[in-house]
Amino acid sequence: MSGEFDLIERHFRRPATNGQDAVLLGIGDDCALLRTQPGQQLAISSDMLVEGRHFLPGTDPARLGHKALAVNLSDLAAMGARPLGFTLALSLPEIDDAWLAGFSQGLRALANEHGCPLVGGDTTRGPLNICITVFGEVAHGQALRRDAAQPGDDIWISGRTGEARLALEALLGHEWARQAACDQLPTLRQRLEAPQPRLALGRALAGLAHAAIDLSDGLVGDLGHILGRSGRGARLDTGQMPVAPALARLPPDRRWQCLLAGGDDYELLFTAATVHRERVEQAARITGTPVTRIGEITSVPGLVIVDAHGQTLQGRFGGYDHFG
Amino acid sequence: MSGEFDLIERHFRRPATNGQDAVLLGIGDDCALLRTQPGQQLAISSDMLVEGRHFLPGTDPARLGHKALAVNLSDLAAMGARPLGFTLALSLPEIDDAWLAGFSQGLRALANEHGCPLVGGDTTRGPLNICITVFGEVAHGQALRRDAAQPGDDIWISGRTGEARLALEALLGHEWARQAACDQLPTLRQRLEAPQPRLALGRALAGLAHAAIDLSDGLVGDLGHILGRSGRGARLDTGQMPVAPALARLPPDRRWQCLLAGGDDYELLFTAATVHRERVEQAARITGTPVTRIGEITSVPGLVIVDAHGQTLQGRFGGYDHFG
Repeated sequence: MSGEFDLIERHFRRPATNGQDAVLLGIGDDCALLRTQPGQQLAISSDMLVEGRHFLPGTDPARLGHKALAVNLSDLAAMGARPLGFTLALSLPEIDDAWLAGFSQGLRALANEHGCPLVGGDTTRGPLNICITVFGEVAHGQALRRDAAQPGDDIWISGRTGEARLALEALLGHEWARQAACDQLPTLRQRLEAPQPRLALGRALAGLAHAAIDLSDGLVGDLGHILGRSGRGARLDTGQMPVAPALARLPPDRRWQCLLAGGDDYELLFTAATVHRERVEQAARITGTPVTRIGEITSVPGLVIVDAHGQTLQGRFGGYDHFG
Repeated sequence: MSGEFDLIERHFRRPATNGQDAVLLGIGDDCALLRTQPGQQLAISSDMLVEGRHFLPGTDPARLGHKALAVNLSDLAAMGARPLGFTLALSLPEIDDAWLAGFSQGLRALANEHGCPLVGGDTTRGPLNICITVFGEVAHGQALRRDAAQPGDDIWISGRTGEARLALEALLGHEWARQAACDQLPTLRQRLEAPQPRLALGRALAGLAHAAIDLSDGLVGDLGHILGRSGRGARLDTGQMPVAPALARLPPDRRWQCLLAGGDDYELLFTAATVHRERVEQAARITGTPVTRIGEITSVPGLVIVDAHGQTLQGRFGGYDHFG
């Protein structure tokens, strides 16, 4: 951690603690010091957000602070891990106190909500770039890995997909999206700019579900990661998928693009044995998270997507590529 | 970790292991999974490098890969920690295979040397930005913290300072620096572009030295961090400081600027009780690292810098500010 820390000190420094006293040393030394509990593994994820690619120029800084941490917490959720803390590396074109105040406020509110303090980082001058690395812990052998899907598993999703993409298309000025969004744009925009990481559900699924992933690039693309790493296939029954009212107003091809390849959903996609349906539904109830069964894992590789009438759905749903 | 991982996969993916099998799960899932040994604390540092600020445009990519990891490993060294692994988040203006091959080669060579595998990260398109977060472990209570300097402690440095700064000034075309660098520029440039983190020394000092910091922003500025956090002062005897031949050719004011406020040295500055002088020198011998006593910690706050004749040295040596 470099010496340009006055900025971080001024805007970000707060007593760095969480419920379990995992943080032994926070901001201000060469390293932060954390301790994990016996029997726990450390889960780590790092994401970089660039203006114009991951967020629109002029995005409200508080929402940006929220989102930058949320996308990382979502990765912890997808492993079934409990947050311990995070580091922030920030490159800024200029020192803008109002922007920093908003950004740090949004970041801190979400960090406090999930007991995940800022423990260190770096600031420098340069094009706007936000890199967060988050640390969590999960009991040995209970992490929800992408390679653990089993044939016959149910495929579940939390919440519903597609609203963030519809909001993005509307904000980019596309008429079809603006018409469908209609008076719901503020709510849809909330889904795009202030996603809620599914941490409580993820922890409740640790040791219960088999495989899990968080939906950042689009449902089909992300499911593909599970299938690829597990060496399995899947049948996806889109007739079961929950559809937000605004998406129901879209023509079918647009609707499927948003639902299946929208990106930025930050919901959990997970697989679990059919014998555990009740336990999954109980985990969902206890954590207040809606979940829906939308398909099953098959032993033969390949993905079959069918509509409500059992007809195979045509189209490319490869997801959103941040290097596209 | 996002879905644009083909890049990382292609250039960076290797079996992620280190000597102690700390890595349970590497690149390719929502999170990496690490395990720390019982009785160990986790040390974490994150640094962001931006083109034009931390390195010159056109810097050899292999050296840049080396340096990006080296500055983070140097933070682990300054805590007395042993490396476990690191994450890389990389923003690139375009996919340049030759650049990526060089960068990953430089990164991997240093990572392998220190048993510190890449365990995950993120890639995206954007202005060139390199953010590395490194993880290490150090025995409970043995970390070398900035706040632990005691009155009467000797102040030590490893190696010598100022060469990286002289190289930078010469590369920027300043005549005074080019004349002093003379035929030594390749060696000096090595100090700037390929610093060697003092990990072996740092580990040998854990539980022996009191306070430590790595010299990234300049000796006086970095010593100031120890003094500030320890609530102590210091007397620095510049007559004791090792001076590289090229720096000896500089006029005194330039020489002191390079030695005391040069930055990018990545040497360790540490304090230890006078009774431990022999043990410190033994640690230095065992790890093959030159060390020099250059002053002492005082109970009265403030920094007094004297020359070889005991005269107080005038000048501002505040170090290099990456947000300046």
